[in-house]
Amino acid sequence: MIKVGIVGGTGYTGVELLRLLAAHPEVELRVITSRSEAGSAVSAMFPNLRGFVDLAFSEPDPVALRRCDLVFFATPNGTAMTMVRELLEAGVRVIDLAADFRLVDAALWKQWYGMPHACPELLAEAVYGLPEMNRAQLRTARLVANPGCYPTAVTLGYLPLVESGAVDNLHLIADVKSGVSGAGRKVEMGYLFCEAGENMRAYGVSGHRHMPEIRQNLMRLAGGEVDLTFVPHLTPMIRGIHATLYATLRKDVDLQTLFESRYQGEPCVDVLPAGSLPETRSVRGSNMCRIAVHRPRQGDIVVVLSVIDNLVKGAAGQAVQNMNILFGLEEGLGLQNIALMP
Amino acid sequence: MIKVGIVGGTGYTGVELLRLLAAHPEVELRVITSRSEAGSAVSAMFPNLRGFVDLAFSEPDPVALRRCDLVFFATPNGTAMTMVRELLEAGVRVIDLAADFRLVDAALWKQWYGMPHACPELLAEAVYGLPEMNRAQLRTARLVANPGCYPTAVTLGYLPLVESGAVDNLHLIADVKSGVSGAGRKVEMGYLFCEAGENMRAYGVSGHRHMPEIRQNLMRLAGGEVDLTFVPHLTPMIRGIHATLYATLRKDVDLQTLFESRYQGEPCVDVLPAGSLPETRSVRGSNMCRIAVHRPRQGDIVVVLSVIDNLVKGAAGQAVQNMNILFGLEEGLGLQNIALMP
Amino acid sequence: MIKVGIVGGTGYTGVELLRLLAAHPEVELRVITSRSEAGSAVSAMFPNLRGFVDLAFSEPDPVALRRCDLVFFATPNGTAMTMVRELLEAGVRVIDLAADFRLVDAALWKQWYGMPHACPELLAEAVYGLPEMNRAQLRTARLVANPGCYPTAVTLGYLPLVESGAVDNLHLIADVKSGVSGAGRKVEMGYLFCEAGENMRAYGVSGHRHMPEIRQNLMRLAGGEVDLTFVPHLTPMIRGIHATLYATLRKDVDLQTLFESRYQGEPCVDVLPAGSLPETRSVRGSNMCRIAVHRPRQGDIVVVLSVIDNLVKGAAGQAVQNMNILFGLEEGLGLQNIALMP
Amino acid sequence: MIKVGIVGGTGYTGVELLRLLAAHPEVELRVITSRSEAGSAVSAMFPNLRGFVDLAFSEPDPVALRRCDLVFFATPNGTAMTMVRELLEAGVRVIDLAADFRLVDAALWKQWYGMPHACPELLAEAVYGLPEMNRAQLRTARLVANPGCYPTAVTLGYLPLVESGAVDNLHLIADVKSGVSGAGRKVEMGYLFCEAGENMRAYGVSGHRHMPEIRQNLMRLAGGEVDLTFVPHLTPMIRGIHATLYATLRKDVDLQTLFESRYQGEPCVDVLPAGSLPETRSVRGSNMCRIAVHRPRQGDIVVVLSVIDNLVKGAAGQAVQNMNILFGLEEGLGLQNIALMP
Repeated sequence: MIKVGIVGGTGYTGVELLRLLAAHPEVELRVITSRSEAGSAVSAMFPNLRGFVDLAFSEPDPVALRRCDLVFFATPNGTAMTMVRELLEAGVRVIDLAADFRLVDAALWKQWYGMPHACPELLAEAVYGLPEMNRAQLRTARLVANPGCYPTAVTLGYLPLVESGAVDNLHLIADVKSGVSGAGRKVEMGYLFCEAGENMRAYGVSGHRHMPEIRQNLMRLAGGEVDLTFVPHLTPMIRGIHATLYATLRKDVDLQTLFESRYQGEPCVDVLPAGSLPETRSVRGSNMCRIAVHRPRQGDIVVVLSVIDNLVKGAAGQAVQNMNILFGLEEGLGLQNIALMP
Repeated sequence: MIKVGIVGGTGYTGVELLRLLAAHPEVELRVITSRSEAGSAVSAMFPNLRGFVDLAFSEPDPVALRRCDLVFFATPNGTAMTMVRELLEAGVRVIDLAADFRLVDAALWKQWYGMPHACPELLAEAVYGLPEMNRAQLRTARLVANPGCYPTAVTLGYLPLVESGAVDNLHLIADVKSGVSGAGRKVEMGYLFCEAGENMRAYGVSGHRHMPEIRQNLMRLAGGEVDLTFVPHLTPMIRGIHATLYATLRKDVDLQTLFESRYQGEPCVDVLPAGSLPETRSVRGSNMCRIAVHRPRQGDIVVVLSVIDNLVKGAAGQAVQNMNILFGLEEGLGLQNIALMP
Repeated sequence: MIKVGIVGGTGYTGVELLRLLAAHPEVELRVITSRSEAGSAVSAMFPNLRGFVDLAFSEPDPVALRRCDLVFFATPNGTAMTMVRELLEAGVRVIDLAADFRLVDAALWKQWYGMPHACPELLAEAVYGLPEMNRAQLRTARLVANPGCYPTAVTLGYLPLVESGAVDNLHLIADVKSGVSGAGRKVEMGYLFCEAGENMRAYGVSGHRHMPEIRQNLMRLAGGEVDLTFVPHLTPMIRGIHATLYATLRKDVDLQTLFESRYQGEPCVDVLPAGSLPETRSVRGSNMCRIAVHRPRQGDIVVVLSVIDNLVKGAAGQAVQNMNILFGLEEGLGLQNIALMP
Repeated sequence: MIKVGIVGGTGYTGVELLRLLAAHPEVELRVITSRSEAGSAVSAMFPNLRGFVDLAFSEPDPVALRRCDLVFFATPNGTAMTMVRELLEAGVRVIDLAADFRLVDAALWKQWYGMPHACPELLAEAVYGLPEMNRAQLRTARLVANPGCYPTAVTLGYLPLVESGAVDNLHLIADVKSGVSGAGRKVEMGYLFCEAGENMRAYGVSGHRHMPEIRQNLMRLAGGEVDLTFVPHLTPMIRGIHATLYATLRKDVDLQTLFESRYQGEPCVDVLPAGSLPETRSVRGSNMCRIAVHRPRQGDIVVVLSVIDNLVKGAAGQAVQNMNILFGLEEGLGLQNIALMP
């Protein structure tokens, strides 16, 4: 059994991580910290966990965390980077669900996240936790940067095209729609039911933190320059990301075959039959990314449709997938939830 | 392994049954019939099942069904009653998720369902599948009438009060709110997104089919007459029933203790701490009924709040719970899904 | 033209008041105050008002307010009572959309609102602004207490029954469902899209501030004691209240006729034909209350269904209706919006 | 007073047309036909119209229609083209809200709508009813082809760019999100609350009927070839279209000035300040198109965000706007509804 700790489990990625870990056959949940909720039962805040999680939130306690085999950080950006070094030195492995270790370039991190990085020396060691891209490195990683939700959906959608050099990498357009839970459990005006309901709006058009992360991924895959227009939209649903990805073909390839062969054997990516139109609900609550590739009227524009549950494959589920890889378990263990439909 | 067949699996209870059975460790899914969809893959209609259910829908085939240990009917009302006798005679056990065997009185059935009953001789044998009420009889049942969604939420909410004689049984008021999936996958005007969304309305005020079913349950519990006003409401959410139940106290009892002791040890009923306000989402996707009991300002009116997922504890999950009882398995086997929240 | 000021217009009742007043032919909007937003254009906060409202929010300025003929308070509870006396003395009439002047009994106010009343001497003078009950007194009122949203829907639903002595006033049960905008534009966890969406829950079962207000109304109508069980529910829609009201008949009356004759000629109450089931969307954006009365199976329980838009007939629209009465205008002037459907 | 008839008023554009015409000061509603609903009161089907529309649906009666000054067709595609010639010959003017007269090329019409055109000789005469493009011709039109909802949002968003030659017209990408009412009141599986709710999906990727209509508009504006990738998405809200439009700049222009000067004085187009992010709810129920233009990181990609209410500016409201132009009235008459927010 893997002894697991969670730092900061009061948000949506936290409760989702608890949902998955509570049902995982190889996990023993040891500690979950929250400064603000210390002392209260986890199931009092999240009644869905009644009968499944008996822990109470506790004050962050370095000793208790050091006794774990693995610590997940489900904290706001900027927290993990102040605590990780100590844990690694104590032999604890770490998966950070926030953005602290996603960007390799500390200057870029500071630019987008508005604070200097607290341990830039770990950035090179951290492995970006997209298994479909970095599985080999993940097996021996001590520190995993769990990808953002948009970067997961967008990178998996573009991956076969960019990796194979099939498209013009300098004119990519990613139009992405997210459910409201993508914003986390933030108590802000814009996420109220009466503000976000029955409404659709774009945001971050002039620049969004996930853009440099996506670009970093695609440049690794391309081995060269990539330019991307990325427009996220807030959609009136709780869970789900629908990425609609546009690219211009540079050579004639059988797109369906390209995608199917690239993702063959992947436990958490499902390439749909030609002509399919994936729905976000087809992955609700599951760790699957479903992808369809289209070439309208056989022109030179490829349209890729990629859907995930932002809280699962876009956050907590992918973190568990990474945990399974780190500890040599079957990659899909504890991740066999079938999506809830309807 | 229990060899299982499903007749009519194209509705919401059908896909939910498939979701649960596909993950059940003691079930081998053998056949699923649908006249209209015969030949097409189940996962083409329900993409959430891709990778989990490999069956195709087939024409109803008596031979294939007779080879099963258990057949679930997820058909419209009036279908099961024409097919059950033959299956029972072949030694197959049957759980009907429709209403065909819920009312003991064939005349009452005809009155509410608008057709004569096709096999009234089986009505007395059929066991009403509310485990919290009829567990002993279910163990040896050949034919189970799986309860309706409203009757499940309402009966479990009233049960401790009525059984113990604590309230006036002649003036019960059940005000119940249901998500739209309670209507099934019926393609009717009133269930369109633009008709049912951002809208609340009562229906069936002058009479609803679930009323005689509820009344029958409560009369069994009371051992005497029961009169009930039942008003169902269509609520703009997909899943969930919230029953708000009113009754007048006839004697002074400790309500919290009454409920907790009655449901102690029940795997699928959770009595919340005093003062709680259960949310429907706390049971979304799970087979749990969560109940809170209130006595506002210590007056003589009891208010019981009872929530279920209408497709799980109100339909497919309860059917699996009944299957577990019929076959001597642990009652909660395959039903440990934690509710999806948010 | 009536010179109108608004104190505190940044909430949902504020923007709704602006929507109605901007289109009102006899209103000149002079000033709208907000301490937090002073200096910024109203239409920057509420883009729907672009081109219709040119005002900017300003600091509360007693001089500017005293130059108005009428001041609406769309402030949190407890604000109006500190500013009203001065305005009345300056000859300005006041309509308070908050609760400050709704309860006649200052001690009761303190008990439910948690603070002593700042000007109890005005409580007797304030007229409760439900035109269908108090039209005559409103014509000459200086100070109007605009009713709460629940009290509007519930009082109008019970009014003909209680006023005529047709029912047992000591065992009333009001089960009421509200859209989320009923909570105002409060930035609180429970009103987030991901908390309130796809979810139904009761609240305030042990006591809600609108209960004493409803009871006060019904006691005036009854001329005697009234006892009420009131359970409000949070419903996943933006606008709308659906009150389901239960009462026990004490004498045999023709309910349909009772309701139709009581509300004959009322511009903002619509008694639906017998057997109707009103939908909240049928009044979305309009100042109408639609009511249907049922007597299931001709028993002794009456069920009244009463729907309003909580922001219009339950708040801003009723305030405009009261303004029309105060200033001798046609009561429905500027309130002819047809409900938005779908 | 304009004597108005409506053919086929039982869908969402029908009820919206009734909502607007009932409040229009220069319209006398004479007849509304529906074969299926003949004889029943309009307000029985649409309770929001109770007290505003007293008409009953009637069988289509050529005589009654010929007595009108103007007939609106709110029928399925293919109906108006069989009835229009006779009306025009009788001197009645016609506005068709369906697609019958939108495409100038009868062969193209047949290709996309699956039936031969019944009166191709009228295609050249019909004026495409986008006032911002064709105002002069509309003034004297006998027959108006009211634009589709997607074409309205997309054309208005691209218009200043394409007309001025600012962008590469051969690589336009329109990613558009529509509320479910865009599908009309069709009783189909995919538009059920439980199918379309809490879900996002693209459709028509391989080809959508509105694509040739958009392309025809843009080619007129460009005076040359245009190539467009158009991907519509079904969004879980009732009303609203959000078009996210991408184009590559060919020359350096001040985009904000370009848009503001092109739309200066337009009563139904609102160019938002630079940096704005329009919300669909800011136009809910109103006949406004709100547009913002962005140039992320000052690159060569322009992003235009254009929102409308698909039932108003995208259908019934635009039809009324066209009526006003045809009859020499103020263009915004009867269209001053302020959007409902929240």
